[in-house]
Amino acid sequence: MSHRKMKLAVNLRGAGGSMSEWRHPDTQADASVNFELYKQWAQKAEAALLDVIFIADGLYITEQSMPHFLNRFEPISLLSALAAVTSNIGLVGTLSSTYSEPFTVARQFATLDKISGGRAGWNVVTSGLLDEAANNYNGKSIEHDAKYKMATEYLEVTKGLWDSWEDDAFVRDKQTGVFFDPAKLHTLNHKGDYFSVKGPLNIDRSPQGQPVIFQAGLSETGRNFAAQVADAIYAIPQTVEEGVAFREDLRRRAVSFGRSADDILVFPNISPVVGKTAEEAEQKYQSIASLVTIEHALKYTSRFFNHHDLMQYPLDEPALNLIDLIPDQQGTFKNFTADLLSGKTLRQLALEATTPRSPFMGTAEQVADTMQQWFEAGAADGFMLVQFGPFGLDDFLDGVVPILQERGLFRTEYESSTLRGNLGLKFPENRYVKKA
Amino acid sequence: MSHRKMKLAVNLRGAGGSMSEWRHPDTQADASVNFELYKQWAQKAEAALLDVIFIADGLYITEQSMPHFLNRFEPISLLSALAAVTSNIGLVGTLSSTYSEPFTVARQFATLDKISGGRAGWNVVTSGLLDEAANNYNGKSIEHDAKYKMATEYLEVTKGLWDSWEDDAFVRDKQTGVFFDPAKLHTLNHKGDYFSVKGPLNIDRSPQGQPVIFQAGLSETGRNFAAQVADAIYAIPQTVEEGVAFREDLRRRAVSFGRSADDILVFPNISPVVGKTAEEAEQKYQSIASLVTIEHALKYTSRFFNHHDLMQYPLDEPALNLIDLIPDQQGTFKNFTADLLSGKTLRQLALEATTPRSPFMGTAEQVADTMQQWFEAGAADGFMLVQFGPFGLDDFLDGVVPILQERGLFRTEYESSTLRGNLGLKFPENRYVKKA
Ligand SMILES: Cc1cc2nc3c(=O)[nH]c(=O)nc-3n(C[C@H](O)[C@H](O)[C@H](O)COP(=O)(O)O)c2cc1C
Ligand SMILES: Cc1cc2nc3c(=O)[nH]c(=O)nc-3n(C[C@H](O)[C@H](O)[C@H](O)COP(=O)(O)O)c2cc1C
Repeated sequence: MSHRKMKLAVNLRGAGGSMSEWRHPDTQADASVNFELYKQWAQKAEAALLDVIFIADGLYITEQSMPHFLNRFEPISLLSALAAVTSNIGLVGTLSSTYSEPFTVARQFATLDKISGGRAGWNVVTSGLLDEAANNYNGKSIEHDAKYKMATEYLEVTKGLWDSWEDDAFVRDKQTGVFFDPAKLHTLNHKGDYFSVKGPLNIDRSPQGQPVIFQAGLSETGRNFAAQVADAIYAIPQTVEEGVAFREDLRRRAVSFGRSADDILVFPNISPVVGKTAEEAEQKYQSIASLVTIEHALKYTSRFFNHHDLMQYPLDEPALNLIDLIPDQQGTFKNFTADLLSGKTLRQLALEATTPRSPFMGTAEQVADTMQQWFEAGAADGFMLVQFGPFGLDDFLDGVVPILQERGLFRTEYESSTLRGNLGLKFPENRYVKKA
Repeated sequence: MSHRKMKLAVNLRGAGGSMSEWRHPDTQADASVNFELYKQWAQKAEAALLDVIFIADGLYITEQSMPHFLNRFEPISLLSALAAVTSNIGLVGTLSSTYSEPFTVARQFATLDKISGGRAGWNVVTSGLLDEAANNYNGKSIEHDAKYKMATEYLEVTKGLWDSWEDDAFVRDKQTGVFFDPAKLHTLNHKGDYFSVKGPLNIDRSPQGQPVIFQAGLSETGRNFAAQVADAIYAIPQTVEEGVAFREDLRRRAVSFGRSADDILVFPNISPVVGKTAEEAEQKYQSIASLVTIEHALKYTSRFFNHHDLMQYPLDEPALNLIDLIPDQQGTFKNFTADLLSGKTLRQLALEATTPRSPFMGTAEQVADTMQQWFEAGAADGFMLVQFGPFGLDDFLDGVVPILQERGLFRTEYESSTLRGNLGLKFPENRYVKKA
């Protein structure tokens, strides 16, 4: 494994993940709608040679939503703007396959891909968690597994549209007047269960062929979808063993769909907290955790209990009785169930839900050690860093990345100008090209 | 009228408007997908203090489509990228209200608006001309007037969503922990004939309040729609008299909808061709017109004749007999009808259709004269320049703009950092703000 290098992505999420991170003295409280800040972050991540900046998304808010969800940039527009002020880093954004049109989405990602010179990625989500139907398609609400069927067909359509033009279709010969070769233009004519899209797409392929597909399904159906269509998947293992099991599972599934195990990269989410000493890291963690009030924490946590009002229960005794309130959603809520079974109190549960304690906490050396351990154990092809605190990104880039480089675990220069190139993914040949 | 200044917009359309402009030796043949070129154009237009760059759009192509339609950037992504590399010029893009979702579109324009510091504009089109249904919403094809009803409701929804947050809703008080004032968050709860969208939008207003609405309807229904909802309308008058009549008509309609006549700005399309002498201008025109072959011209022109094959007719005799082939589409095709009635041949008609001769041709002084005449006669509040030839933009910016400035007809510095500010449009108060 010594020559394998890890990939690094960073989830830029504005004013931060917990309900209260925006209150930290060093947090720019308007961060989620501050383009200059996103630009600085992206350029800093690029200077540190990271593979990807990732912008998550959601289509529904209520008064109870987290601050960085209430007021945020839409990913396609934000990433396109960032494309103009960066030159090597990958630009990955979430977009829902349930509440959008494949023709438009294919065009928007293709445009981002061409403007950026081949750096676009799409995190395909099925919009499972929130009441997003209320804002889209006249409330058309769709059941979990049907959404994945729809997503599978959606990807067939977009991948098909992205191959509308062969890479050498545009001849542009001024002498003869031939602008393109009609034999290299392909009309999709898709008619399926969910979509009917004629094509062709009115934009050709980028230097990386097609945008990179990311996915984050956790359920059985979600994992199969990822194993079938995705180039990369996010994961949220709590331990290295869980990480290894998840990655092995995904790789096996990819093979079962006729792909190579290396065709799908697994990126566990991590939230490093780095200090000069382990104590300083703990202080940094506390500087964020202590900003959350118990009222905020209970309000936030209630979403995992069917929006049940949690204020009415005692805070400091084991809260086993709350288990029945947890909706039976595959994967997502299983940690809460385990925590309650292990005797945690409601206060512990709520505060940890808003500010989870990361296994990647300590000195830069310690964080690098843990990453190396996970990576070498086979729990990860790379990591998705989730900014923790206003110091999180800088601490990681300045402190941990150089150590990973010294150890030969991370690149010292970009291998390529495309995202696929840097991730070491195969160039997708246009499906219509005739093999000699 | 001496203090009124004209507004100037430019339609950037890649490799140019005719079938063959890309063949000119100075045209960058890949212009429509060349971001560096768009960036240069935008920055040059901004240096010349123009109000707007405009990106048109379409959702359907065939082999017969014009070169700059076959392979082009999607407007939201392109304009967002341009927002990051400009600072004053307005960024206006076409997006269809027939084949998109209001929640997503409201977010994308709001994001563009915030990233650009209040410079976004949306040219609302109903997708009337092409078979765009084949690529969208499973082929849902909608009749002309119903599309405008839908568009009217669509604008109600997006304008409503854009007011979700009052301008001072985000308190972000780190001491008290108040992120926003819930009394200043408004949930739309729209349920109409075409759309049901709950809201609120997950992004707040930009410095200009709401994106500027452009429109280009020509039909009775289209004009009423514009008069009701638009801040600006494009027009394609052939003469100053037609221009005056169109502008007066729009202003009257605006008043009939309870608005002020000055609430809607009229931008005739013009394609200036500027030479050091009138002869040089004519040569420049010919350098483009002569690139079009008669086969290309006939193929192109057939779209205005129900895609009837025009190759079979004599080229050089009056072609009155073709009138019956013109589909009875209100407004759009009336010039063809008039041309045939006046005795034009098929060759003349086809060549002029691909490369229309502009009334704004001659020396920079002459072009400025004609613009001044139109402006002062009341045919225009501003002009939409359509790039003609690879020299079109530079010739206009370098030659004509300084003359307009000398005459006091065009600004010598930006009045504002927002598009509304520069266009002299009112700031739209948030509908929910309680008046004192
Ligand atoms: C790291 C990570 C990032 C995610 N990002 C988003 C997102 O940006 N938007 C979204 O709607 N869902 C997001 N999800 C939710 C997933 O798409 C998926 O719905 C969830 O993991 C549950 O899996 P399932 O759909 O297979 O049941 C994310 C999940 C994970 C683990
Ligand atoms: C200057 C101008 C620009 C236009 N731009 C677009 C465009 O980018 N995309 C599009 O689909 N239609 C465009 N149109 C078409 C109009 O939206 C409209 O459909 C057409 O003018 C016919 O008017 P009607 O719809 O009222 O019948 C444009 C029209 C004009 C005059």
